[in-house]
Amino acid sequence: MNNEEFDRAMMLRCLELARLALGQTAPNPLVGSVIVRAGEIVGEGYHPGAGHPHAEIFALRQAGELAKGATLYVNLEPCNHYGRTPPCSEALIAAGVGKVVVGTIDPDPRVSGGGIERLRSAGIEVVVGIEADACRQLNEAFIHRVLYRRPFGILKFATTVDGKIATTTGDSVWITDTNARTQVHKLRAACDAVIVGGNTVRRDNPHLTTHQTEGHNPLRVVMSRTLNLPEQAYLWQTAEAATLVLTAKGANPDFQQFLLKRGVEVVELDSLRPAIALSYLYERGLLSVLWECGGTLAARAIAEGTVQKILAFIAPKIVGGTSAPTPVADLGFTKMSQALTLERVSWQTVGQDCLMEGYLPAQIWANV
Amino acid sequence: MNNEEFDRAMMLRCLELARLALGQTAPNPLVGSVIVRAGEIVGEGYHPGAGHPHAEIFALRQAGELAKGATLYVNLEPCNHYGRTPPCSEALIAAGVGKVVVGTIDPDPRVSGGGIERLRSAGIEVVVGIEADACRQLNEAFIHRVLYRRPFGILKFATTVDGKIATTTGDSVWITDTNARTQVHKLRAACDAVIVGGNTVRRDNPHLTTHQTEGHNPLRVVMSRTLNLPEQAYLWQTAEAATLVLTAKGANPDFQQFLLKRGVEVVELDSLRPAIALSYLYERGLLSVLWECGGTLAARAIAEGTVQKILAFIAPKIVGGTSAPTPVADLGFTKMSQALTLERVSWQTVGQDCLMEGYLPAQIWANV
Repeated sequence: MNNEEFDRAMMLRCLELARLALGQTAPNPLVGSVIVRAGEIVGEGYHPGAGHPHAEIFALRQAGELAKGATLYVNLEPCNHYGRTPPCSEALIAAGVGKVVVGTIDPDPRVSGGGIERLRSAGIEVVVGIEADACRQLNEAFIHRVLYRRPFGILKFATTVDGKIATTTGDSVWITDTNARTQVHKLRAACDAVIVGGNTVRRDNPHLTTHQTEGHNPLRVVMSRTLNLPEQAYLWQTAEAATLVLTAKGANPDFQQFLLKRGVEVVELDSLRPAIALSYLYERGLLSVLWECGGTLAARAIAEGTVQKILAFIAPKIVGGTSAPTPVADLGFTKMSQALTLERVSWQTVGQDCLMEGYLPAQIWANV
Repeated sequence: MNNEEFDRAMMLRCLELARLALGQTAPNPLVGSVIVRAGEIVGEGYHPGAGHPHAEIFALRQAGELAKGATLYVNLEPCNHYGRTPPCSEALIAAGVGKVVVGTIDPDPRVSGGGIERLRSAGIEVVVGIEADACRQLNEAFIHRVLYRRPFGILKFATTVDGKIATTTGDSVWITDTNARTQVHKLRAACDAVIVGGNTVRRDNPHLTTHQTEGHNPLRVVMSRTLNLPEQAYLWQTAEAATLVLTAKGANPDFQQFLLKRGVEVVELDSLRPAIALSYLYERGLLSVLWECGGTLAARAIAEGTVQKILAFIAPKIVGGTSAPTPVADLGFTKMSQALTLERVSWQTVGQDCLMEGYLPAQIWANV
């Protein structure tokens, strides 16, 4: 293994460590760090979540005196400001680290590069950009949050190969097989919130949990203007996972009381739109939200710029139905050439099904 | 290479030769043959189409005297009856072939095994079943035709990943990229007919040709009860490819005259249904038909058992539209568990798009 290969391997180890806190760091990024001395790892750490020390600090603690003159790897530029914790740059300097290898710089243009400058001014060699794409990918939600002041939005749906998310009567159990459904549970565990509309609660009565696939359950969010919702719903069982209902000012006070008694949080927004909902969830510190809603809300979420990535599970089934619902309702397009063409697309099989991952082009949502 | 590997390699060469006549042999199968003597190929041949000699005869002609004592490979059991040509079994015996390796037996239960028996009774060693799956796959249309007395039906559609085959106004130019469209042209060249309904002619004015991708154009078939069709349509330009219009008894005599003057064939059926249309096309000797129709006709074609295989091209685009059409209209299903689950499914990327291939379970169509 040459030096470059070694650096890449260490950076991938940082990402592996960082992922141990997947879904639990909001509003902070996923960060892992490794300290290497004479070709051997002498310290490792990751950031477990807000209020805890940063990854570099755990790695330094484990390395102890061995950090002196060693090389520290970290997937994101070390911080240079006092937040809930003192700046990592100062801790690295104090520990006498000889070299720092950084995956990507801090996305916040106000502080970007500051940590690296501070290290260099203290005489530490800094290398930037090792496995940069993988580092950016892992923190795509954090980067989006910092740049656009909104959580990163993922729209997930499951369709038959003839494009249906349910039958004409609304039945959707089940479209995909267990492999795909397990993958959805993992996806939920990596997100901070799952959002549905009132229709999904009324029709599907979903759990929206990770079903013990992973420890972490996302915040379950319901957007409902009327609060015309059933009293019996798995989402009101808050012992399993927290539920937040977003609604309009003054909507259905009786049902609000009903929800509060069951431990469901209710928040009235000035305007119950996806963009306003996501601004509110930004203020609450969320990195990423998973839209698991029906076609009407999905179309509005796309139109308001609150969807960045799309995950489509496609099952090799034909169900038909002229009026059976499809994943995205009206976007106002009359020409096929207006269709939103996804970027960085990948297709992979998941059991019997296929999973498409792709990104909406930034020009579609960045100027909404 | 051991003996078994050698046999498989020779059989795959037979399939390669057979495919040279793809789309041109109806109602006959695709057959290729290779003669090997002392480990070397001394004769090759394939069946170019009805009225021409069979593959084995071409291979024997090329091998000449070298066929004596040699091994002949052929993907389908040699025939043992007098049709337009004398039986191949007799020709092989007369040439003194020492051994015959057969891919699959004749699918027709009335004659199946007869050729092999005749060869064995003449003292020739016969081995059966080398690369049997690949041999069956290549002749799936011929096998279906023989067993069910109908052409093999393939339903092909192209959708956005949100399940739309057009926008709300019917625009569908283009869903997939050029790679997928080229693949559709090749698919057409491999089929004997392409079928659409009147709506597709009115809305899309398609060519339904292979656009010079391959030499062979399929018969273009339009099913229209009313013959309420435009006078200007690419399908009426019969210099490029032949067109057949299937209609109901006594429909629109003036338009029938109009079509006949342009060289379009018109046939009145007792009942203009997919099953009746395919029985008629069976009588005309077709092996395979490609349904390239809209959702309404596609649903009827499935319901009447005239679709065996589905090819779905899926483009990574989102177009939306509650009333925008999807690939298959009403099948009468209200529960997702009633959905038709495809078998032998494969997913592959084609340029930016994904192609799913799968088969409807035989129990769905065999008893219709």
